[in-house]
Amino acid sequence: MSKFWSNMAKRTKPYVPGEQVQATDIIKLNTNENPYPPSPKVTSAIQEATNRNLRLYPSPTMDALKESIAAYYELEADNVFVGNGSDEVLAFSFMAFFDPDKTILFPEISYSFYPVYAGIFQVPYKTIPLQDDFSIQPKDYFQADGGVIFPNPNAPTSRYLSVSAVEHIVQQNPDTVVVIDEAYIDFAPDSSSAAKLVEKYENILIIQTMSKSRSLAGLRVGFALGSPDLIEGLMRIKDSFNSYPVDRLTLAGAKAAMEDTVYFEKTREKIIQTRTWVMKELETRGFHVLPSAANFVFVTHPAIEASKIYESLREQHIFIRYFGKPPVEDYVRISIGTDEEMERFFHYLDKIV
Amino acid sequence: MSKFWSNMAKRTKPYVPGEQVQATDIIKLNTNENPYPPSPKVTSAIQEATNRNLRLYPSPTMDALKESIAAYYELEADNVFVGNGSDEVLAFSFMAFFDPDKTILFPEISYSFYPVYAGIFQVPYKTIPLQDDFSIQPKDYFQADGGVIFPNPNAPTSRYLSVSAVEHIVQQNPDTVVVIDEAYIDFAPDSSSAAKLVEKYENILIIQTMSKSRSLAGLRVGFALGSPDLIEGLMRIKDSFNSYPVDRLTLAGAKAAMEDTVYFEKTREKIIQTRTWVMKELETRGFHVLPSAANFVFVTHPAIEASKIYESLREQHIFIRYFGKPPVEDYVRISIGTDEEMERFFHYLDKIV
Repeated sequence: MSKFWSNMAKRTKPYVPGEQVQATDIIKLNTNENPYPPSPKVTSAIQEATNRNLRLYPSPTMDALKESIAAYYELEADNVFVGNGSDEVLAFSFMAFFDPDKTILFPEISYSFYPVYAGIFQVPYKTIPLQDDFSIQPKDYFQADGGVIFPNPNAPTSRYLSVSAVEHIVQQNPDTVVVIDEAYIDFAPDSSSAAKLVEKYENILIIQTMSKSRSLAGLRVGFALGSPDLIEGLMRIKDSFNSYPVDRLTLAGAKAAMEDTVYFEKTREKIIQTRTWVMKELETRGFHVLPSAANFVFVTHPAIEASKIYESLREQHIFIRYFGKPPVEDYVRISIGTDEEMERFFHYLDKIV
Repeated sequence: MSKFWSNMAKRTKPYVPGEQVQATDIIKLNTNENPYPPSPKVTSAIQEATNRNLRLYPSPTMDALKESIAAYYELEADNVFVGNGSDEVLAFSFMAFFDPDKTILFPEISYSFYPVYAGIFQVPYKTIPLQDDFSIQPKDYFQADGGVIFPNPNAPTSRYLSVSAVEHIVQQNPDTVVVIDEAYIDFAPDSSSAAKLVEKYENILIIQTMSKSRSLAGLRVGFALGSPDLIEGLMRIKDSFNSYPVDRLTLAGAKAAMEDTVYFEKTREKIIQTRTWVMKELETRGFHVLPSAANFVFVTHPAIEASKIYESLREQHIFIRYFGKPPVEDYVRISIGTDEEMERFFHYLDKIV
């Protein structure tokens, strides 16, 4: 602790992201990136935007990208907020909608950045245990004091809540904001985002990212869908923090990614196919595999310690995620790679199992 | 005000950036962008990075870029922090070093984002009037309670404080952080950044941007130089907010920009030359021109209202900045463009004067 740090800097317990190994001879299944590259239309759009106009500020309102996102979800541009990755959008949401005098709710097993945001902005929170099957029980989130936030599908459990269950939670919290963090929604059954609820309820905020289903983790773009009131709240925070958080190349690439629905469907379908095969193969080897609606699986083995699986694969330059904390200390999270990557994964896994 | 907004969202008064006109047939002298495009080495580096690896997260520690910046200033990588534009670095600095129970100081006429940051994070502040010649009086900033922040050169005044004057302020505030916002320092005499003071004093933080002298406003990258303690404070806040605020293309482009010192010197010199000529021409036309150490000039005319100059030029699609608030309601700020742009500017100005 330095004497120059603010109380905010002193009290925070920073988030630790999954390891970003820079070597090239590895299989990286630890941070849920997409195994397929972005659409060729994305790289073309970026190449076109790599011109002398980089000397000029980007659009602070990001209207062109907002319109593409709105068109995809059949919403209006004023239902859309864009930020520097969904982590920034989440941070802005904690700032815009949660207060230090009201307790928010989120699941006990969930995205581990939520308690960090709550800590830095002094938002009190209560964590709700999952059911024994790691599912979320909607009624646990009825009548929250200060708001609700959870990922759907949940991470790292990969379990999914239906749109009608989400709607029920939103209905039961008419005076507070319910944030649905849909980072992995495009891999869920029928890709059933709760996006359309935005037209019906003023208090639901959907947050999505282009880092997963749109293969753009390297570009940093996330977005939120909500009522114009909620979007204006986010814009107020953004404009009090950083006028231009999304650069010209990212705006161009993200717009192309939203619009190339053919490539998007193709890669998403492929990942879902591979997931089905991977889940079956894991079960064959005695793993217990949670039903996955995401681009990763969350698994445990009755006979082999999770830490041992993690360490042994790591020695073979295969990186998966091991959290090592109760109540998930027996589980590992494995991102879905290409078929070739998953074959190599099983090749080495078979030496352990 | 929406009932769903937090107190933070309600109390903030967002910053209003200079107008970002999207038309192409304009002369844009209103947001201090560089009139020259980025180095060809920057565009090459971006093109090279526009590849399938965009699917992968960027480096959360940004070491390669930090090393280039450190090498340029003959410092160590642990003296460097990188963020999404200097506005984000400024926001993180307010969060990391300033507290709600201690009053900070900044000039009355200064970057208008400072009171916005102070407002959103509830940092009390006192503004200090400038001298009659719009210069900063160092002793006004001795023994601050909660810290000091000012731009050097100051904006929108364009006036500059020597490194020894900056050092004096830093010495007189041994227990609080002094933030020197050097967005325009590369256009100052002898480009005398206070960067090297970082080795001597633990409590100075230098903030710079690549949006001005390095022609990269469209890419969003800023950085801070400070003692390892201060840099760690900023990293704690960053890692509690957004793990990856700077994308792969920006990391690649910014590194190339830091390393192409030949192109950098050439464009910077050219802008300084044009500024000298522009100042002389304005004085010939009866303007009072403050001594400028930046890539803009801050001027007033004894006979013509500032608002009229602004409006008349705007009708000709020439955009300059008019703040319209006391005590600078008689002034306009004009960014330095290319020689051709400034000739067209004078052509229309002569119809007004």
